[in-house]
Amino acid sequence: MMSNGKAGTVYGIGVGPGDPDLITLKAYRILQSAPVVAWPAPMEGESLARRIAAPHLPEGLTEVPIRMPMVEARFPAERVYDAAAEEISGHVQAGRDVAVLCEGDPFFYGSFMYLFARLVDRHRVEVVPGVSSLMASAAMTGAPLASRNDSLAVLPGPLPEEDIAARLDGMDAVVFIKVGRHFEKIRRLLEDAGMAEDALYIQHATMDRQHIQPLRDADETAVPYFSMILAHRRGEAWRKPGDPAEAAQ
Amino acid sequence: MMSNGKAGTVYGIGVGPGDPDLITLKAYRILQSAPVVAWPAPMEGESLARRIAAPHLPEGLTEVPIRMPMVEARFPAERVYDAAAEEISGHVQAGRDVAVLCEGDPFFYGSFMYLFARLVDRHRVEVVPGVSSLMASAAMTGAPLASRNDSLAVLPGPLPEEDIAARLDGMDAVVFIKVGRHFEKIRRLLEDAGMAEDALYIQHATMDRQHIQPLRDADETAVPYFSMILAHRRGEAWRKPGDPAEAAQ
Repeated sequence: MMSNGKAGTVYGIGVGPGDPDLITLKAYRILQSAPVVAWPAPMEGESLARRIAAPHLPEGLTEVPIRMPMVEARFPAERVYDAAAEEISGHVQAGRDVAVLCEGDPFFYGSFMYLFARLVDRHRVEVVPGVSSLMASAAMTGAPLASRNDSLAVLPGPLPEEDIAARLDGMDAVVFIKVGRHFEKIRRLLEDAGMAEDALYIQHATMDRQHIQPLRDADETAVPYFSMILAHRRGEAWRKPGDPAEAAQ
Repeated sequence: MMSNGKAGTVYGIGVGPGDPDLITLKAYRILQSAPVVAWPAPMEGESLARRIAAPHLPEGLTEVPIRMPMVEARFPAERVYDAAAEEISGHVQAGRDVAVLCEGDPFFYGSFMYLFARLVDRHRVEVVPGVSSLMASAAMTGAPLASRNDSLAVLPGPLPEEDIAARLDGMDAVVFIKVGRHFEKIRRLLEDAGMAEDALYIQHATMDRQHIQPLRDADETAVPYFSMILAHRRGEAWRKPGDPAEAAQ
């Protein structure tokens, strides 16, 4: 990371899982002072990260949309990030701080890392961690994500079936992200692992349209990409974490 | 969860990983209005959760320390939580909201779950998710925790060696928590898995005394319980997440 007295800073801002009040004080303060804000969005339509941060954005900002084609071919995606990095770099060289808005946390499966890789050797880049959808989903379900000496796996839905089965083996708790069209595969694998009975399906955690239901009742025809499934080998008992003595070193 | 017009609410407040500015706006606002604050602490000495929240606590609060013996025997730990739950319950029944301070996130390996289990059937309990040390550590190291379709394991250091080895197998990224006296075991297991070379050791992420270094240089004689090790199968390349096209559905 390079820095000089005149150049600005790139901030990778975790804006949290959806509820605008789940942004951090640090992120909020940076948004009050940075004159440029960049955000990822689909080719057409709204940016979720920008919508989450909207109540906190001052008037008169310069905005840098980073619009990504939904069907990601290799070269378009790389070109979009290359172009966004150049635009951000221009602002930073001119002395303007740039806040890049990231859903959840910037370094937890976030697209910010593609900008980070393009900017970190040229500019001062600071990552501001945010509340992840992982923790937000657990909070909303009322069931601890992991406790004591639980092993926890985070598995993206697009992984091949045999890889998921192998990585599930022996884990106490598992969170599936990017569920979308992989819903049926995941449900079957959780059934095979004996973890489906009390698993929970969550979409849009902490947002107005939040939806939580038992996995067994979920409608597999209406599963968005950014939905999650939480499961625990302790089943029902995971809501009652039991004896704290077992958590000792 | 029960609620009536007169009873208060129990809030499980994630205060974030250490930097007081990494608390959420939501948590901050609840701390401005709740007349009672409870916090975990060792038998003697300071509460880390309270120290993180201290700049945000108003004057004149009623405080409920939850002091836990360091060597956890079964009955003392259960009795401490039983007593704390009774004291909190008394405030709630009298119409006072109680904010329970939790380091990081309340449902990510937090002790709040022991109070939650004791209070959720009697009172209105709301969990306010926080920035976890997991995300904070990744932000401070400048290396994404997980990207694209990475599988990620979170493994507590106290797990038996053979369990760790089995759960590491095939994972792209791994975070060890509760490292402490298990440091040598973890380093050896990461070496066996071919993931030690670029692993990072982190203690006190986002705090004044933050310390980050390559695992291979870390001093195994001075490893606190609440330290972490981050490793990635891509090694050095994990800082440069590569081609976004591979992240497609």
